[in-house]
Amino acid sequence: MSEMFDWLEEKLKALNLTDTMDRPEGFTRLSFSPEEKASHAQFRKIAEELGLAVSEDEAGNQWAVWEVDKEAPTIALGSHVDTVVNGGGYDGVAGVLSALAAVKALKDKGYQPAKNIAIICFISEESARFGVSTIGSKALTGQLEKDEIGEVTDSDGITVREAVSEYGLNWSKIEEAELSAEKLESFMELHIEQGTQIVENRAEIGIVNGVACPVRLKVRAKGMANHTGSTPMHNRKDAFVAIAPLVNFVSDEAARLNRIHKSPLVATVSTIELKPNVMNVIPGEIELGIDIRSVDDQLKRDFASKIKVYCDRIEQEIQVMIDITTLVDNDSVLLDSVIQQKLSSVCDELGYDTFHMDSGAGHDVMNMAARWPSGLLFIPCKEGISHHPKEFASMRDISKGIQVIQRFFEIETEL
Amino acid sequence: MSEMFDWLEEKLKALNLTDTMDRPEGFTRLSFSPEEKASHAQFRKIAEELGLAVSEDEAGNQWAVWEVDKEAPTIALGSHVDTVVNGGGYDGVAGVLSALAAVKALKDKGYQPAKNIAIICFISEESARFGVSTIGSKALTGQLEKDEIGEVTDSDGITVREAVSEYGLNWSKIEEAELSAEKLESFMELHIEQGTQIVENRAEIGIVNGVACPVRLKVRAKGMANHTGSTPMHNRKDAFVAIAPLVNFVSDEAARLNRIHKSPLVATVSTIELKPNVMNVIPGEIELGIDIRSVDDQLKRDFASKIKVYCDRIEQEIQVMIDITTLVDNDSVLLDSVIQQKLSSVCDELGYDTFHMDSGAGHDVMNMAARWPSGLLFIPCKEGISHHPKEFASMRDISKGIQVIQRFFEIETEL
Repeated sequence: MSEMFDWLEEKLKALNLTDTMDRPEGFTRLSFSPEEKASHAQFRKIAEELGLAVSEDEAGNQWAVWEVDKEAPTIALGSHVDTVVNGGGYDGVAGVLSALAAVKALKDKGYQPAKNIAIICFISEESARFGVSTIGSKALTGQLEKDEIGEVTDSDGITVREAVSEYGLNWSKIEEAELSAEKLESFMELHIEQGTQIVENRAEIGIVNGVACPVRLKVRAKGMANHTGSTPMHNRKDAFVAIAPLVNFVSDEAARLNRIHKSPLVATVSTIELKPNVMNVIPGEIELGIDIRSVDDQLKRDFASKIKVYCDRIEQEIQVMIDITTLVDNDSVLLDSVIQQKLSSVCDELGYDTFHMDSGAGHDVMNMAARWPSGLLFIPCKEGISHHPKEFASMRDISKGIQVIQRFFEIETEL
Repeated sequence: MSEMFDWLEEKLKALNLTDTMDRPEGFTRLSFSPEEKASHAQFRKIAEELGLAVSEDEAGNQWAVWEVDKEAPTIALGSHVDTVVNGGGYDGVAGVLSALAAVKALKDKGYQPAKNIAIICFISEESARFGVSTIGSKALTGQLEKDEIGEVTDSDGITVREAVSEYGLNWSKIEEAELSAEKLESFMELHIEQGTQIVENRAEIGIVNGVACPVRLKVRAKGMANHTGSTPMHNRKDAFVAIAPLVNFVSDEAARLNRIHKSPLVATVSTIELKPNVMNVIPGEIELGIDIRSVDDQLKRDFASKIKVYCDRIEQEIQVMIDITTLVDNDSVLLDSVIQQKLSSVCDELGYDTFHMDSGAGHDVMNMAARWPSGLLFIPCKEGISHHPKEFASMRDISKGIQVIQRFFEIETEL
């Protein structure tokens, strides 16, 4: 086991392009950046050491295949290696590393699968650079809205299309990455939980029922900018004063719903842009970004409606104009129940306590689930911290995940 | 009178470097910018047309002097022509223009003053570029903290020192702009009100008792950034949720104090910086800027203390760390009572209704008042809108201001 631990430590660092996981600044490998590319190169290197056949598709997804028979079905497992700005070294990487480790373990003990096993390292899962997530798995499953996404820009004004070309891919061929249904039999992803529900429920492995896709709103309040010193209190249309109570309404109302509903809901006012945002001018305009998630689609849409009603009231009571735009409104994704049962059995067999839960965060698996029976496995991460330099998953927890994948591979690929 | 109106219209546009005052984007002449310089050139041109002696001091302040006798005392009047980003065409310009127009009127009617009259066009009054205001009048009155201010940077990282050099001035000589007390007898400024108190009190001219210098606080709340989708509501340390109620506390408490205190107080949460400010991450850190003003220094300092007490309570009730820094805490400036009386008498004589009031905004006069008996005259501006393209003062109101200045000049410079 200690040999496997050493291998894991070494490859974890390799995929993270680092000599130490203890980095105060964390890891920054944005979509289609040289850093993402360098991490992909490490993925290919490790896969080649394991004797896997390595290739890149037209979208830049990396494939490592243990091919036993061209005619045999293929089961796939994957995640990503790109990160947010100053993110952690486990979000994505833990899944890719676990899949590689499971294959290594099977090879080490001389196992011969009856089906092919593909490990996919998806490109550009995080939305940190372009505000668009899971570009690689969208391309793979024919869900990339090419014309629209191609023109989306990062903070430097670079479009996805330009970034893809600069990365060395051919934008005009990106749709050729799409894989027809018969090419895979199933898909599985392992990911860190990015929460604390597994541990809070005294479990070791999370088995995910569904992925709660968000409703996202942009709330824009328009008052009147004016001089802070010369505008009396009774004569103001301060957009910040008008809209600030919404921040607490969203938080309090979400907490209240969790006390009375079975299906969890989370809601966050996560972004703000205030104009003009200078010390001696009353805020004239404000834009809030609100992220609402629940696997219960009705619950999350009702919540968005409540925000609209609340804003209507503010608008009537205070002289500000409020306008609400729905940026995103996707149905949640339910995962394959057969795969969930298999994962449950595997965990029982291995003696790991499981917790059945929803995923509040989106993952590549939500796109893959549209085309193939798919599963999502969570391992705990320390204090639920993610997208942060302090993100951490222990080798013990990663190893448990690897055990589950290894056993799942065996069951799925037996003769 | 219509001839004077035409002259005012023409010179108003000249000082604003424009063919029309109706500009949706307003006016942008930042501190030490080529635009401020071009407006200074227009000031000199107009002054020369009026036969005034034009010069520039070491700080870049423009001087136009009606010199009748080198040995005679000099009374001064001035304001500025720099603006905020997308500001109006009257803040500062109205004062400079009115002073020039009053001199023109006196010259036109053949008046011979017994004292010299100096019109000062101060450099860099607005804090929009560097966060430092009234650089020109600070230099003139020996209040420029040269070492400190020199290293302050704009959003492009350019220091005041570098900007001053690029502007064509000699930074090493800027302190030579300081003027000893005996060089002037008094100082007066005319400015747009940037509020609506004159009109609300059915008056035509505002006579200012004092300038309410701000207390400015920076409030920093630190919670914990985490994934919006995977962090249950009960497990969050959302810095925005923790601190949002402070926005309404500041506004409500200021409104309440105005109902029970004679001396007005205004308080505004005018800036925010939220980290990381991305859709799928719970706000981990937030910084609010608070601007508090009252001529009653005790009242504004008590208000700052109340904010501290309020934040202590938040810190204890919710698991966030709050830390408060006082950025600015200046005593308010009381203006010369004799000049106020003279302005009152002039307005009575002219039949203008006056309103005695405080200035919530800072002006060059607050620096000049430290060295010379000084006065500040307000004229109304439409709906109190300022620092905004819609800023507007009517020719009628500007003309009333000019009448007051002209008569004040006569009284002050009679034999």
